[in-house]
Amino acid sequence: MRPHLHHAHAEHVELESAFTVDASRVTFGPGSLREVGLRVARHLPDGGRVALFTDARLRRTEWYDDTMAALREQNLEVVVFDEVLVEPTDASMQAAVGFAREAKPDAFVSLGGGSVIDTAKLADLLSTHPGELIDYVNAPLGAATPVPGPLKPHVACPTTSGTGSEVTGIAIFDLVSAHAKTGVSSPLLRPTEAVVDPRTTASLPADVVASSGLDVLCHAVESLTARAYVGRPVASPVTARPASQGANPWSDLGARQAIELIGRYLRRAVADEHDEEARHQMMWAATLAGIAFGNAGVHVPHAMAYAVAGVLHDIGSDYRPAGYVGTESLVPHGFAVAVTAPAAFRALAPTTPFRHLEAARLLGGDTAGVGPREAGDVLAEAVGSLMHDVGAPNGIGGVGYTLDDVPALVAGAAPQRRLLDNAPSPVHEDELHAIFSDALRAW
Amino acid sequence: MRPHLHHAHAEHVELESAFTVDASRVTFGPGSLREVGLRVARHLPDGGRVALFTDARLRRTEWYDDTMAALREQNLEVVVFDEVLVEPTDASMQAAVGFAREAKPDAFVSLGGGSVIDTAKLADLLSTHPGELIDYVNAPLGAATPVPGPLKPHVACPTTSGTGSEVTGIAIFDLVSAHAKTGVSSPLLRPTEAVVDPRTTASLPADVVASSGLDVLCHAVESLTARAYVGRPVASPVTARPASQGANPWSDLGARQAIELIGRYLRRAVADEHDEEARHQMMWAATLAGIAFGNAGVHVPHAMAYAVAGVLHDIGSDYRPAGYVGTESLVPHGFAVAVTAPAAFRALAPTTPFRHLEAARLLGGDTAGVGPREAGDVLAEAVGSLMHDVGAPNGIGGVGYTLDDVPALVAGAAPQRRLLDNAPSPVHEDELHAIFSDALRAW
Repeated sequence: MRPHLHHAHAEHVELESAFTVDASRVTFGPGSLREVGLRVARHLPDGGRVALFTDARLRRTEWYDDTMAALREQNLEVVVFDEVLVEPTDASMQAAVGFAREAKPDAFVSLGGGSVIDTAKLADLLSTHPGELIDYVNAPLGAATPVPGPLKPHVACPTTSGTGSEVTGIAIFDLVSAHAKTGVSSPLLRPTEAVVDPRTTASLPADVVASSGLDVLCHAVESLTARAYVGRPVASPVTARPASQGANPWSDLGARQAIELIGRYLRRAVADEHDEEARHQMMWAATLAGIAFGNAGVHVPHAMAYAVAGVLHDIGSDYRPAGYVGTESLVPHGFAVAVTAPAAFRALAPTTPFRHLEAARLLGGDTAGVGPREAGDVLAEAVGSLMHDVGAPNGIGGVGYTLDDVPALVAGAAPQRRLLDNAPSPVHEDELHAIFSDALRAW
Repeated sequence: MRPHLHHAHAEHVELESAFTVDASRVTFGPGSLREVGLRVARHLPDGGRVALFTDARLRRTEWYDDTMAALREQNLEVVVFDEVLVEPTDASMQAAVGFAREAKPDAFVSLGGGSVIDTAKLADLLSTHPGELIDYVNAPLGAATPVPGPLKPHVACPTTSGTGSEVTGIAIFDLVSAHAKTGVSSPLLRPTEAVVDPRTTASLPADVVASSGLDVLCHAVESLTARAYVGRPVASPVTARPASQGANPWSDLGARQAIELIGRYLRRAVADEHDEEARHQMMWAATLAGIAFGNAGVHVPHAMAYAVAGVLHDIGSDYRPAGYVGTESLVPHGFAVAVTAPAAFRALAPTTPFRHLEAARLLGGDTAGVGPREAGDVLAEAVGSLMHDVGAPNGIGGVGYTLDDVPALVAGAAPQRRLLDNAPSPVHEDELHAIFSDALRAW
């Protein structure tokens, strides 16, 4: 029998005792971009038209040339969309959708960071199925209409060791009218295949490697510490288990390995763009952490990151790391997540101290003789030390926020209930206030 | 550039630098058999007929009742095939194929051990696509015709913590006319979904848990020590990478975790059928090891097992463990694999000593102060000690073989080139002779 929880004031709630995991086909290795043509062609036995999504910077790289040559070699017709923004908005997504609706491709290839892959996911969705973007966007901002069925084949080729979007069913963008980041989530959005060629990270600026590496760290630590799958109320029907189902033995595996690789390689990958081993291992860590959080879910630091990135303009900060071109102030996604991570882990550790201690140990922290009461401090220190060494901003103060900005930040993060409910213990406005206040400095 | 190897007498051979991994959707947890109906129904939006494959023993269990009720609740028509043999033969496979061709099911559900799941795979193949069994069988015994396309949906529900067949694209049977075990291998044979309900292991006899658990151990250790993916000649086309591609960072993850779980739980799972934690953890280990060897491949102990099981009748042995009903002598698959494992690992360790040491340490062996030269001995001892404690036969001598039988065993194992070529160092008749001779005792 499934266990039942008896509430004084509620009906019996059936509790979860199982978890469901999914993974894409993943090809990993230097040179693998040259397989993209064959991989797409296998999904299009009668040939056809491929939409290649990328951005203006990547279009000038040899990785773009490799991908294009591989597609052409299979006699596939290729149409290119290279107007993806670093931080996609509903308007940029609409432009991509318009392109796809007109081009009517039979398959999609995305070559880029999370923004490129996410844009291709939504262009695929809205040129395959009826409806408009807002219909599919997560509630409450959108109507959260379920994706009606399979999309066209999509081969995703990440070029940053970061988002893990190549193995998840999530697409995130900035809904400008609502001043909020939001997105679409469905297992059907997950790319058909991922082709991960770690050569693509060779030319990334240090700040980009640092920020995306810290994003990976948070994917992994948040997956490992997410409220466990067992004992949650079951979905209805039970098979409608969400991807954010909480920590489980499968996500734990990928998360643990990713944390260990980050502890060993992120400093080296940031310090030396010629350290091929370190950059390749970070790429593998990003894929593993993507598989982990795609089957467990992230929580507090990712929820707070929406506010950290979104409120920046309102305070007139001119923060922008050297590796990011442009004139506007910007907290790159990974830094936006990481700046609150030490404070969040410190606050959340008491519920699951041994998982937090384990994360600290895997990251290379000194946990000898450390008891469970100090788990949060030890993990916060290990994360803070890594942030310091890779040039991350020192907490939310490091990007320009002061204690006066905390209420606005809390207001920006509080609506992210789906993520906050994945935390190991309840997080509401009071807890957010305490964590943001503690996050003014990260070390 | 991909690396090239220059041979004096050969053309340039392009060398592998990437790996490709696939995984099924897996649902794991007690009670999950009750989801089978919903999961099948999602693949049959217009309803239809489901072929439920099982065996005579399982048909009398509550797991069968749960599965049948779950299918009926979705208004699916169910036809049952329960004539699967513990060790399937070409004749028993043909009977299953004949059943499926007549019943014309829209989907398959298998509830049982590897034999049941493998039988369903081949019935699905040969009732979906044209041709006969021998056309698809691995060369040289069969024509190795590629599977032409996707099969009908197949939800596989394992009931032994053993083969991992629910997550692999392999189906094995006894080709009686050739006195040989062989099979069909294709990623397209992998079940659409696996539903792993560890409650099903509750009533398994100790010998069955012991044998299947040792099979899992060998899946994991052989995956971890298989000749690495990198540096092998590339497939043609490169995307035709075989599932037995060698040890890779993905298979390593599952293999390591499985070895650790086996070291911690197999003795308990064998000793006490009411030790739910131990039996559930063994079921998870079996799934993980299945994912690992499904993406890396096994090697010497599995190749030798074909001979160990096959030559038994010729020597007039009456070996049969207590937990296996029937009158004929029989070495269950897991024991047939394990009896040569200590000797095989001892012989193979010098090529990759640190991987063998790691396996010994994960299994709970004492590796303090042990150097790489002793890696094989230490792993052989750890495996032998576990075999002893769970009641496995003491080497090939334990099932009735003597030194005189070694030539016949070598002759039985030598044709398994696909498996032998996956070993960390070359294994030909001389090496097989040495390993079988050393395998007369396992401890």
